[in-house]
Amino acid sequence: MNNNSFIPTGWENEINARVEKIAAQLNANGLDAVLLADNVSLYYTSGRVFAGYTYISAEGKVYYCVRRPVGFEQCENVHYIRKPEMIPALLEKQPAKLALKTDVMTVAEYNRLSQVFPEAEIADASAMFRALRSVKSEFEQNLLKEDGIHHQAAYERIPAIYRAGMTDVELQIEIERALRLEGCLGLFRVQGGSMELFMGNILVGDNADSPTPYDFAMGGAGADASLPVGASGEPIVAGKTVMVDACGNFNGYMTDMTRCFRVGEVSELAMKAHELSISVNRRLAQFGAGTPAKQLYEEAVKMVEEAGLTDYFMGHKQKAGFVGHGLGIEINEAPVLAPRSRDVLEEGQVVAIEPKFVIPGVGAVGVENTYIVRTDHLECITNAPEEMIELV
Amino acid sequence: MNNNSFIPTGWENEINARVEKIAAQLNANGLDAVLLADNVSLYYTSGRVFAGYTYISAEGKVYYCVRRPVGFEQCENVHYIRKPEMIPALLEKQPAKLALKTDVMTVAEYNRLSQVFPEAEIADASAMFRALRSVKSEFEQNLLKEDGIHHQAAYERIPAIYRAGMTDVELQIEIERALRLEGCLGLFRVQGGSMELFMGNILVGDNADSPTPYDFAMGGAGADASLPVGASGEPIVAGKTVMVDACGNFNGYMTDMTRCFRVGEVSELAMKAHELSISVNRRLAQFGAGTPAKQLYEEAVKMVEEAGLTDYFMGHKQKAGFVGHGLGIEINEAPVLAPRSRDVLEEGQVVAIEPKFVIPGVGAVGVENTYIVRTDHLECITNAPEEMIELV
Repeated sequence: MNNNSFIPTGWENEINARVEKIAAQLNANGLDAVLLADNVSLYYTSGRVFAGYTYISAEGKVYYCVRRPVGFEQCENVHYIRKPEMIPALLEKQPAKLALKTDVMTVAEYNRLSQVFPEAEIADASAMFRALRSVKSEFEQNLLKEDGIHHQAAYERIPAIYRAGMTDVELQIEIERALRLEGCLGLFRVQGGSMELFMGNILVGDNADSPTPYDFAMGGAGADASLPVGASGEPIVAGKTVMVDACGNFNGYMTDMTRCFRVGEVSELAMKAHELSISVNRRLAQFGAGTPAKQLYEEAVKMVEEAGLTDYFMGHKQKAGFVGHGLGIEINEAPVLAPRSRDVLEEGQVVAIEPKFVIPGVGAVGVENTYIVRTDHLECITNAPEEMIELV
Repeated sequence: MNNNSFIPTGWENEINARVEKIAAQLNANGLDAVLLADNVSLYYTSGRVFAGYTYISAEGKVYYCVRRPVGFEQCENVHYIRKPEMIPALLEKQPAKLALKTDVMTVAEYNRLSQVFPEAEIADASAMFRALRSVKSEFEQNLLKEDGIHHQAAYERIPAIYRAGMTDVELQIEIERALRLEGCLGLFRVQGGSMELFMGNILVGDNADSPTPYDFAMGGAGADASLPVGASGEPIVAGKTVMVDACGNFNGYMTDMTRCFRVGEVSELAMKAHELSISVNRRLAQFGAGTPAKQLYEEAVKMVEEAGLTDYFMGHKQKAGFVGHGLGIEINEAPVLAPRSRDVLEEGQVVAIEPKFVIPGVGAVGVENTYIVRTDHLECITNAPEEMIELV
């Protein structure tokens, strides 16, 4: 094999800029280096997932310490290793203060890597990377815009996909197929091991009011107790809503978008709540960089209270404690739009806003969009029609 | 809500038996209790995934410390908590020696839980659970047999799904749909964060020889550098093989099965290697409980050497270092069938055996089956036809 560059074509400048930003942060925090081991961090620092480690020094020197795949032996900054114990011998100088990401690293790996650098003081790089990754470059914003276009194209096929008599699971399978044919990679990356989802969450009728253990905005009993979220085999019948919140990962980054459908007429309450969700989206998109994230949550709550819909907001039997979240490579990045969030919106951050309601006897309503934070507003990049479309 | 039991219906005796086994192991290892926090362990100890912790004492008392979902407030052994700091107050007695699973727990969570029990000595429960979970009860074996039946039913539809002119990705999407319609939950659980796969691996032609970073038996470039494994958009043309290795998770447990197809005639070498894979499966299935796992690997290697096919065995440009693996809730459980494995087969363990070959210019060949370890043989539970079926 003869690969010229470990960095995928077109990613070179972006990766250089990221390494520079990381080195600057290491310097600002008095750290000599960071050693990254998780797939998301490896992808962030190289443009590809590989087996191994990325080591970045405060001087901005990067070492890709690769176990697999073979084929990049001649590439710049690439060093093949069989085990992490081989890393120190590659380095120009040993770190006195080395950062690791303790939010995603297992104890077993942390202990091993600490022993690889027995002289080093070990620091935590979690907060630094959470902040760094939350602000998206133009390159990343373009990947996310590309997601938005494909995500929208797949969602616009949903009315044609629907057949009377389908269950939620059957409709979900056809939506999954439409997304995959549109280029969706399917993988839904979530930071931490506590949240699991296959490819999306389709909620019909009262299944939307089944509490889930996972920290998603909406619930659903799921098809099995081993994966208790989302569609559960509920028939799609007249008077019920169908909420579609499915995977927007077309290129390693992902958008988040929810749209809502109905069969026949649904209650006035449901229609009103859906319209309010659109209004909340519109109102929150008027905020821009510099706004405390919790202010967006508070504004949403205020609008919902004024409309008298608090009982149904962000769930009914069980409620979610946020109205939006950052996203990018993973679905749960910074900032968090929640009452006790200390995050402040920064230009270039990307947030999903999802003011949703669960109406007993009807189902879930509301829309979710992904926005790029601009100086004085939020730019929506998920532009499928927002009204509640009737499925016939 | 009024749920009578936290344990799903039909799981009560199974969960009681598991708790007893865990308590016996705690006693045998001089531990007072184990605190489990990862979804797989929560599912293993309760029959459902929930947000919270399972605490099991050496006396066999179990505490389900639940954050979410709501609705089980009146159930036996269930205690609602907002945070782990509330656990000690629930316990009859405090542990002097407490075990955690350091192989899957993040450093951040470990540090927090250690501080919840500041007086306790913290031990590691990883090896204990690896051993415990590797031996499947009759209840678990029945779930796995159910998987095998559905897995087979979906695979048998593949020839009817195929259309001339498809790419590997297009065929994969239709196979995913067939599996989902058969009841597959889609989620592919892997222990640890290093291996990622969407719903399966479909390899056509020379894409099978593209090295992957992941520790799967076979590679494939994948559709994007963010998920570099499997189908890459390769056209399915005459003279090539199509290897299908897709998700068998129909109930929280999963089978692993690979079948191989061809378009037109493929080379004699490819046909010979495929036949050898079937023979290796058959030969290894003659071993039973008490056999060192590495002996199965050595036997496979010996058969391949005798046939002169070593160059192609378990990959060509990049080779995998094993011929099989335990599985159950996750795809990578004990035992490992590899040259340096110290595992010894035990009755009731479940292993996938996958002697595969990559033939340059043709593609991947071979079959994989899931077996239950019996006293004197391995019982195959994935019984789709093994011959290389022509796609027309």
